[in-house]
Amino acid sequence: MNSTITQTREIHLASRPEGMPTAENFALVNQSLSPLTDGKVLIKNLWMSVDPYMRGRMVDRKSYVPPFALNQALEGGAIGEVIASKNTDFPVGTKVSSMLGWREHAVTDAAGLTALPQTELDSSHFLGVLGMPGMTAWTGLTRIADLKAGETLFVSAASGAVGSVACQIGKLMGARVIASVGSDEKAALLQSYGVDAIINYKTCGNLTQALTKAAPEGIDVYFENVGGEHLAAALSNMKDHGRIAVCGMISQYNDTAPTPGPDNLALIVMRKLKLEGFIVSEHWAHYTEFATKMAQWLAEGKVKAEQTIYQGLEQAPDAFIGLFEGKNRGKMLVKLA
Amino acid sequence: MNSTITQTREIHLASRPEGMPTAENFALVNQSLSPLTDGKVLIKNLWMSVDPYMRGRMVDRKSYVPPFALNQALEGGAIGEVIASKNTDFPVGTKVSSMLGWREHAVTDAAGLTALPQTELDSSHFLGVLGMPGMTAWTGLTRIADLKAGETLFVSAASGAVGSVACQIGKLMGARVIASVGSDEKAALLQSYGVDAIINYKTCGNLTQALTKAAPEGIDVYFENVGGEHLAAALSNMKDHGRIAVCGMISQYNDTAPTPGPDNLALIVMRKLKLEGFIVSEHWAHYTEFATKMAQWLAEGKVKAEQTIYQGLEQAPDAFIGLFEGKNRGKMLVKLA
Repeated sequence: MNSTITQTREIHLASRPEGMPTAENFALVNQSLSPLTDGKVLIKNLWMSVDPYMRGRMVDRKSYVPPFALNQALEGGAIGEVIASKNTDFPVGTKVSSMLGWREHAVTDAAGLTALPQTELDSSHFLGVLGMPGMTAWTGLTRIADLKAGETLFVSAASGAVGSVACQIGKLMGARVIASVGSDEKAALLQSYGVDAIINYKTCGNLTQALTKAAPEGIDVYFENVGGEHLAAALSNMKDHGRIAVCGMISQYNDTAPTPGPDNLALIVMRKLKLEGFIVSEHWAHYTEFATKMAQWLAEGKVKAEQTIYQGLEQAPDAFIGLFEGKNRGKMLVKLA
Repeated sequence: MNSTITQTREIHLASRPEGMPTAENFALVNQSLSPLTDGKVLIKNLWMSVDPYMRGRMVDRKSYVPPFALNQALEGGAIGEVIASKNTDFPVGTKVSSMLGWREHAVTDAAGLTALPQTELDSSHFLGVLGMPGMTAWTGLTRIADLKAGETLFVSAASGAVGSVACQIGKLMGARVIASVGSDEKAALLQSYGVDAIINYKTCGNLTQALTKAAPEGIDVYFENVGGEHLAAALSNMKDHGRIAVCGMISQYNDTAPTPGPDNLALIVMRKLKLEGFIVSEHWAHYTEFATKMAQWLAEGKVKAEQTIYQGLEQAPDAFIGLFEGKNRGKMLVKLA
């Protein structure tokens, strides 16, 4: 009977945002599905992810992933279930992760599909703490910044999908963790994770001074998600030989004009700092190592998986825009079914 | 008869410069030498070095070396000869390197003295190509940026003491080398080293575009001596996984107000770049490895040691100020005897 599904609703990029994205940049479209030929499966998406990096793909420029095309479905992480199959590797009922988000159904071959492992955890966590954002947090702390027990870690955007996991892994690795967030409600979430100091950057006054107060002996590792003032404040507070894992600079993503960088970059020499940008996809060979650890931490209750959930495909643009308005605590998700 | 020398002329820091240093910040002073007690030597300095990093020590702030004290002799690299000795390790006639620059004579114990090896090279080269600046160039390319044959290297301040050696080592390592300089005369020097492309940043117009033209396929390694616009232009032209060895940011050293950094730091994430600051003193355990290679390159005529020489201690402040006015080609030295 699922073969009666011949159409999907999907979200297209209607126009390229300038500055903060708006509803007008998106269009909800009915689209015919391609036929279910040999080797293909029909997927019904259960969850889709919205992530800050997608903003970069909405601009028509060279970046680490090609830009989204206009008037075509957007792409992004999704969890779905196979509801019709002409591929024996993915029988009906298989739960799969894919990059076929921003749509309710898809017909696809097996390339780009990963069957989810058997677990008692809700499949949505494979878009969050057990998926790309969790793996990003772990990669930045272990493979990029080489965080060690006893060191001081500063995490910006600390209540976000990546930051909230980075803070918790930081504590589990034995670091003293300082978190920066944009509201008292988010601060409370971080408090519940047992982080050592929390800065509300919107109310703290001078961020550099607030950070000095929170880390009087300096910072060993900065997990950079924000850029701008946060980077300047971190630089001013880094210890000699400090490391900065540069995961993102969300404060810059909607800039319409270039914003100047920190005025204290000479500290990179004076304090012998290392800054390293990274993209989690290049580290995916280590996913099993990460997932094994993270599954155990989750089972033991040592990591908590916070989620903010919007309901229905038509809410996806709002969920995405909400990322830049600080509307999420933990992973921002859209529930599709 | 040398024991009759009981006084030295030396240069004191009379006041802390604000912005570009001026002659008034320095004072030429006659000072009594301490007595030549057991274990000590009397040194007559032959050469002294002026280096951009000294500007940082003229400011009263925490940095990787303590600030210079007011109304005391400045410090810096020097080559001298022992002319009276009560230390059997350093007999009369020994040529030594020390940090006792900015003065004509010194009485000192052996701590901080290094006897120069026997060589046919002029001893002044131990302040340049065979000394700290040469070792800095080699360390940045090999130990920090891991330059490989076939890669494209960009060097700023390329006619300076460090930059001119970095360009030559880059060529010897098999890289394509692009050099930025501030005059056509300096460009000619770089031309004589066989570098592949030269940019006169004062006349090239848009530096980012000039660099794109010189390196259409992008830069693998940037040897950063300048900061500011040079850093921004390099970032815009880095290849994925490019490395930036951050040796100095001379454009910032005389700033009286903070100058904003590049507006394109988000490229650190997008292109997965690594920036690493370093101080050569922390790599000194590798000096012998470097010096062995460099001595051979010099003997074979594969590295040329350019020098700009000022004559006499009273010229030392002008030589130092000249560093920030681009007056040197290669190593800036003051000949004291």
